[in-house]
Amino acid sequence: MMVNWNNLDTLKSYSELEKVEKVDLISAMTGESGAERVKNYQVPMACGLSYNYAAKEVDDNILKALANLADEAQLSEKFEALYNGEVINTGEKRLVLHQLTRGQLGDKVMADGVDKREFYVNEQKRIADFANKVHSGEITNAKGEKFTTVVQIGIGGSDLGPRAMYLALENWAKRTGNFKMEARFISNVDPDDASAVLAGIDVEHSVFILVSKSGTTLETLTNESFVTDALKKAGLDASKHMIAVTSQTSPLAKSDRYLEAFFMDDYIGGRYSSTSGVGGAVLSLAFGPEVFAAFLEGAASEDELAKQKDILKNPAMLDALIGVYERNVLGYDSTAVLPYSQALSRFPAHLQQLDMESNGKSVNRFGEPIDYVTGPIIFGEPGTNGQHSFYQLLHQGTDIIPLQFIGFKNSQLQNDVNIQDSTSQQKLCANVAAQIVAFACGKKDENLNKNFKGGRPSSIIVGDELDPKALGALLSHFENKVMFQGFVWNINSFDQEGVQLGKVLAKKVLAHETDGALTEYAKLLAI
Amino acid sequence: MMVNWNNLDTLKSYSELEKVEKVDLISAMTGESGAERVKNYQVPMACGLSYNYAAKEVDDNILKALANLADEAQLSEKFEALYNGEVINTGEKRLVLHQLTRGQLGDKVMADGVDKREFYVNEQKRIADFANKVHSGEITNAKGEKFTTVVQIGIGGSDLGPRAMYLALENWAKRTGNFKMEARFISNVDPDDASAVLAGIDVEHSVFILVSKSGTTLETLTNESFVTDALKKAGLDASKHMIAVTSQTSPLAKSDRYLEAFFMDDYIGGRYSSTSGVGGAVLSLAFGPEVFAAFLEGAASEDELAKQKDILKNPAMLDALIGVYERNVLGYDSTAVLPYSQALSRFPAHLQQLDMESNGKSVNRFGEPIDYVTGPIIFGEPGTNGQHSFYQLLHQGTDIIPLQFIGFKNSQLQNDVNIQDSTSQQKLCANVAAQIVAFACGKKDENLNKNFKGGRPSSIIVGDELDPKALGALLSHFENKVMFQGFVWNINSFDQEGVQLGKVLAKKVLAHETDGALTEYAKLLAI
Repeated sequence: MMVNWNNLDTLKSYSELEKVEKVDLISAMTGESGAERVKNYQVPMACGLSYNYAAKEVDDNILKALANLADEAQLSEKFEALYNGEVINTGEKRLVLHQLTRGQLGDKVMADGVDKREFYVNEQKRIADFANKVHSGEITNAKGEKFTTVVQIGIGGSDLGPRAMYLALENWAKRTGNFKMEARFISNVDPDDASAVLAGIDVEHSVFILVSKSGTTLETLTNESFVTDALKKAGLDASKHMIAVTSQTSPLAKSDRYLEAFFMDDYIGGRYSSTSGVGGAVLSLAFGPEVFAAFLEGAASEDELAKQKDILKNPAMLDALIGVYERNVLGYDSTAVLPYSQALSRFPAHLQQLDMESNGKSVNRFGEPIDYVTGPIIFGEPGTNGQHSFYQLLHQGTDIIPLQFIGFKNSQLQNDVNIQDSTSQQKLCANVAAQIVAFACGKKDENLNKNFKGGRPSSIIVGDELDPKALGALLSHFENKVMFQGFVWNINSFDQEGVQLGKVLAKKVLAHETDGALTEYAKLLAI
Repeated sequence: MMVNWNNLDTLKSYSELEKVEKVDLISAMTGESGAERVKNYQVPMACGLSYNYAAKEVDDNILKALANLADEAQLSEKFEALYNGEVINTGEKRLVLHQLTRGQLGDKVMADGVDKREFYVNEQKRIADFANKVHSGEITNAKGEKFTTVVQIGIGGSDLGPRAMYLALENWAKRTGNFKMEARFISNVDPDDASAVLAGIDVEHSVFILVSKSGTTLETLTNESFVTDALKKAGLDASKHMIAVTSQTSPLAKSDRYLEAFFMDDYIGGRYSSTSGVGGAVLSLAFGPEVFAAFLEGAASEDELAKQKDILKNPAMLDALIGVYERNVLGYDSTAVLPYSQALSRFPAHLQQLDMESNGKSVNRFGEPIDYVTGPIIFGEPGTNGQHSFYQLLHQGTDIIPLQFIGFKNSQLQNDVNIQDSTSQQKLCANVAAQIVAFACGKKDENLNKNFKGGRPSSIIVGDELDPKALGALLSHFENKVMFQGFVWNINSFDQEGVQLGKVLAKKVLAHETDGALTEYAKLLAI
């Protein structure tokens, strides 16, 4: 089936959607109606997760209109085109294959003369083999001693996703006996970042992963030199302590500076690379290849759900459509991601990149201007911490901010205390339940300072426990949500031309080839 | 002088401001005009910092109108009333005295029968004395061994500010020989938070600080029990390992559960408490009382500047007014805080609480509804990391997001490498300079996908190095900015009634006293 790429505001189903009567969330969520919604407005996800959208400003009429929009915008067909290997990244003329790192969703995809699924699986195996040898002591430092720490050097997608995934599984791995090595991350070009990480580790027993697809990322190459210097100063041979994750065409691919090189390719954007070698090397070293494989398995299962044409069986597509409704019809500018799980402390930072870099665009996929808003601001912190911070504004501020909660029935370390007749985990879960209802229903008070207007929409993804499979499913959900929203907005979610100008100007500053304001700013900063 | 508390939209100067011709930022910041703006649109701050607003959408006409607004809204007079001890927190009927923890800005302030400045200074001295004894080995664990780690137990303002300040000075302290003890933080009621921190420290040589003004914060008391259990299991006497920072009227004040108790009071809101004992105990233990005193000194110097009636000499007031102009006249909904300093990695999270909890209000200080927007969304991550994450949306997204950069000429650890003819620190500074100009001026490209519209406003605070004084000044700047904005919006920036409803409902869930949707959500989360 041929797909048609049309702007959102040209779709009949979109103007129909705008006309559907809005939902009064307070009355919908009050009493028996609220209870019914919580029971019914729920879609199963993979790995025991579920997506509950009871507290969103939708009802059956709006859901019907969203389904029509999904049909007319051909969301399923576009996803199919993507995973079957069409050139979906029109700006850079590239395929988009990150789903293929975790499963074969459709046809065999050939590119660069190879079966790409085989290529990704093979790299995963090579990484697994390397990690196993490090763990068994077959690959060691020069003295024949085991490596105890792995340090990822990368920025943006080579940092945020892998770091968030590592933190998400660290405690789970410790409890379940899967913890192999401590991982650390160096990302910022600020020299204090690399210095502090290096000062805090046992360099002699550390293996470093240099991650850069192009092999030209300034921050990453600078930090590589930083690390190489530190290794030399410690009397160590840097090439015995460093591996690379890069593309086969990069200058890093066949360098004798590295113990080994593992490959990804141009069909995997940085922010979608956690399931490629970019996440694979560090996670396999930290937790073992089986844990990484389970993480991929979870993502693959969730990807399968994203193929469902029925939006009520496709949580990523439904989440995407509700988000578009909130952004374009209801006019909300941002979304807060609020995981009630300390392990997901950096998950919102990863989603911030995933979403804002993918869909923060003002032109459609053909480079034509568009007349509607696209990607929202994404921000968030774990609950209950956020409750004692910015929730004041979420409850009583002048703008409405849609909320995306995440919660788990069980903790990861399963170490708890019972205070005032409840465990900490129960308190945590009670708080997220309470917040959803407080935001949706509000509470009248004659003292307006204590009045809660309510009508503030949220959804929640609930799981049993944050384990590798659940984490994979969670990641896939958001990747696919962002992809579907990009399809609806008719934008290219897979390039990032907006990051180029700053790089060009920074080089000019360093080369002292500036004029006007830039010269003065350079002086101000004593460059 | 009697002050008048009027809503923003009743002020003549505000309607005048709305009429002033808008600034075309691209043309203003291009060529010689841009260079002149960078040189002239700058206000010195304390401790070698400066606030540069060249890339904001203001010109001399708008600055004049903002000065008139400051006059009519009596910002200076209101600040004077505040520091002289009037009941500015009308909701809770309390004085607002956090500035008094670092200096005497005006009249002697008597409350609860004591000179409050003396009270705060005395608590600071008691903390200094305690910290010195811990460092000298006069106060030890039961075996007479020195404490090596300090762990803060607190949430919200008892966590975010102190944690951000600790991270901001950790590397500076290590370089300058001021590093005394490692600090850790337990905040979330998620049991995995406390478990992980406890698993990562040497409990026998750790001193814990329990921080709760009321002594009733559920998360904090739960985490106290968590820690007490862990100490008992290790065969240790918890009361020899724990101190409290609380109010004199709290149940913690005279408990034999603690080695010592230090006091703050109801006149210091949690989010403004970093310069009280809440920040003082952990920072004095980690870095020594002299470092904490220098931090207070920096804040006090910046507070003095906030007394200036001339907005061009008062950086906090000017920053506040420009923010109101952006929010209410230009209609921007959020502000990104972007420190080009890894040490400030959690400073945006602290400002997120400071700003959004203070000014996320929909009623004025008399509890009457208001018809204009108030506090914006605040979010941010350190540069250059953010450049590889959400900057795509900032440059090319459909909404304009004002930016607040922070940069320093020198790194903290002063350990650097020279790659491609520049140090990492120079690259860091070149990047922030480049970003400001890229955002302001943009760059035309016939390929609209590579086109940068520009016109995206920013300011930058520049300093020599992030040391304790500079950090104090930086903190004070933002506290006072938020305060002045609250005055302009005629809201009470010092209460947080919006956090109450969630607490009440969470208790109902735990007591199984729910109905409707809340019952169903509780089931969903298996409570």
